[in-house]
Amino acid sequence: MSFKDLTPNTVIEYIQSYTNIFPAEAKLTVYEIGAGDDDGDGFVNHVYRISDADGKSVILKQAKPYLKAFGAGVPLTTRRNQLESEIIKVRSAITPEYLPTMYHVDAANNLFVYEDCGRLKIMRFELIKGKTFPKFPKQMGDFLAKSNFYTSEIYLDQIVHKGLACKFMNPEMRVIMETILFLRESFIEAEIELPAGDPNHIIMGDLLWEKRELRVELLKLRGIFMKKSECLVHGDLHTSNIMIDENEMKIIDMEYPFMGPSSSDTGYLIGNLIYEYIAWFHHPEGTQTSRRAYRQEMIDYIRNLMTEYQKVYTVCWEQDAKPMYRDYPEYREALLRDYIKEVCGFAGCQMVSRVGGIVPLPDFDVLQNLASRNSARRLALLIADALVMKREEVESVDDIINLIETITTRYFEVMKALKNRS
Amino acid sequence: MSFKDLTPNTVIEYIQSYTNIFPAEAKLTVYEIGAGDDDGDGFVNHVYRISDADGKSVILKQAKPYLKAFGAGVPLTTRRNQLESEIIKVRSAITPEYLPTMYHVDAANNLFVYEDCGRLKIMRFELIKGKTFPKFPKQMGDFLAKSNFYTSEIYLDQIVHKGLACKFMNPEMRVIMETILFLRESFIEAEIELPAGDPNHIIMGDLLWEKRELRVELLKLRGIFMKKSECLVHGDLHTSNIMIDENEMKIIDMEYPFMGPSSSDTGYLIGNLIYEYIAWFHHPEGTQTSRRAYRQEMIDYIRNLMTEYQKVYTVCWEQDAKPMYRDYPEYREALLRDYIKEVCGFAGCQMVSRVGGIVPLPDFDVLQNLASRNSARRLALLIADALVMKREEVESVDDIINLIETITTRYFEVMKALKNRS
Repeated sequence: MSFKDLTPNTVIEYIQSYTNIFPAEAKLTVYEIGAGDDDGDGFVNHVYRISDADGKSVILKQAKPYLKAFGAGVPLTTRRNQLESEIIKVRSAITPEYLPTMYHVDAANNLFVYEDCGRLKIMRFELIKGKTFPKFPKQMGDFLAKSNFYTSEIYLDQIVHKGLACKFMNPEMRVIMETILFLRESFIEAEIELPAGDPNHIIMGDLLWEKRELRVELLKLRGIFMKKSECLVHGDLHTSNIMIDENEMKIIDMEYPFMGPSSSDTGYLIGNLIYEYIAWFHHPEGTQTSRRAYRQEMIDYIRNLMTEYQKVYTVCWEQDAKPMYRDYPEYREALLRDYIKEVCGFAGCQMVSRVGGIVPLPDFDVLQNLASRNSARRLALLIADALVMKREEVESVDDIINLIETITTRYFEVMKALKNRS
Repeated sequence: MSFKDLTPNTVIEYIQSYTNIFPAEAKLTVYEIGAGDDDGDGFVNHVYRISDADGKSVILKQAKPYLKAFGAGVPLTTRRNQLESEIIKVRSAITPEYLPTMYHVDAANNLFVYEDCGRLKIMRFELIKGKTFPKFPKQMGDFLAKSNFYTSEIYLDQIVHKGLACKFMNPEMRVIMETILFLRESFIEAEIELPAGDPNHIIMGDLLWEKRELRVELLKLRGIFMKKSECLVHGDLHTSNIMIDENEMKIIDMEYPFMGPSSSDTGYLIGNLIYEYIAWFHHPEGTQTSRRAYRQEMIDYIRNLMTEYQKVYTVCWEQDAKPMYRDYPEYREALLRDYIKEVCGFAGCQMVSRVGGIVPLPDFDVLQNLASRNSARRLALLIADALVMKREEVESVDDIINLIETITTRYFEVMKALKNRS
């Protein structure tokens, strides 16, 4: 079967000809995701929702050999699509409840069809609106701990583990994160046209990037990210890749998986939760009390997510670690200590790279008042700096939270003092 | 071409039919290596020396799908042979002076033909005789630093580096070292018949293996060995895999290569040099002065090898590191500090696993007096324990040497005090 570069017009024909998902007589309609504001996807791939008259719907995702948003000028391996369908299968064997069901894989055409999670919402945009998801920390801690444990050599046969490492070596996609998360020289900023950027924002970023000690620590964290071949990680676990409601959570967009450090996904995600914590000092909605409560909600997500992670990881270890590991809980504790330090560092990296650059960040961009937006950015950069530089001193998730809250308190004290003087 | 399971009788026919190494009329003779005491090889593979009447000779090495010494009962991947020829090519592009020249590779038959280094001697047996190799520390430091640097991502393109990691993932061979170096449960001891073992030796090993804190540290070091994908390492760099004379050094037996920590080969090799340092307290040959001088020689090899490593690594970095690394010598210094700590740990692991078990160790087995032999073993285990447990406190090669010398002095003080009392 030759390559079919699907269009909204040919998607229905494809679904009817090559899959049995819908009965032959079904009347199907198609919608290309990315047209709506809160769609969240459709930046990198072509993503279609196909529905029948009864409301049953599925998602078809096709990779083309470039980034959709930038066109043929920014080539990208189509193998990402096959890897994504395979990693969904691996993870579905571990935690099916957190993955969309896979219906159809067509490697030759770089596409697959999976469950439409459209009943759920993209977490980032819900957090921006102040929605809460009380089950999220437990669900996410559970997902991360089980995914990490059961794809690590603590559980897997050594040879199988190395086979997975090769299968998901994924060099072309990894290079993207290895560059944008840890280095100033982001090729994305060089190759696409970005808005000119607020000069105050640029100066704040420059100040941080010029700090040598920080750059060295970013290189060290990049070294861990690139060299530590521990378990299969998602590689791009931010709040736009989480579909959620009050009961269910689904993880999507798995094009960056690789055998990496168990701390990297948690750190990356926590960076995103910190943005919301910071943003809710500045949102005009609600009352002072409700905003404080929402910030506390974000802090609780961070604490409870990591606490749940450690709890579930320990249960997995006690049940399923190879005897040579199970006999030494001291080793598990050492791994979890490293995990906490690295999570702290990777959370900081994500914030340095994102807020230190001028690529869009919906969590802050939603703040209409420019002074508020820059205040959020400044605080984010201060917290990021502390998370990276102080990570070796951190022993628990409470230490991380103390660091965040201490920097925040000091920041607002300084701001208040400056305001009183002027 | 179908698989030819060569025998001493068919080796000549093969060489004449499939290579142009010797003229058609050459009168060739063949010798299977492993028949002589100091041959050193022929334990794992079939290795033949083919010579013509003028004395020109080459080595043919063929892998069979099992360990030669144990027969078909201990299967082993024949892919090791192809990997070996490929890693020789990679390393020959970096440091040709330390590798045998490759003449002919026949992947289908799991064999290759390379330079006969028979003019050189196997280092281990020369050290046991008290020979010195003044150029060795510089040669080895140079070899290790260049091999490590130019196969790391500090120099290589990120995507090329990951390609090499997959090509040399080598899971079946790695599992051997991952087991015997760090775990008590050595499958080798389980599957082959070993001499019953001296009860005193067994008790000493048991005492060490029962120390929980040590076992946890061995698991941590094993984690570094298995997970840190930094540069291509030899994987089995002991003194029997070094061919040497006063001018030349050649590294042989590269069946265990993989992308691992830059510290692992150095640590493994230093463990072997420490055996000689210890053994020369007990050799009956020479005078007290000459034995002391020889022990000092071994200590100097350790110091100078690691000093040279750091010097050459720094030169490589300044010349050839990618700009984003070259601009941050602080990061290089951090890598070299980690290198020293890990070398210390890996040296200890090698000694714990080798002396803590009852597999033969020529460096000590040559000591005729049983009390001396057990004294050497006891001291080796004490040093090994210190190297593993104290590695995080070590900041320089001098710290490692101080540790070795301090434990040695205390050990002999205790022995003397016990002797004076009895």
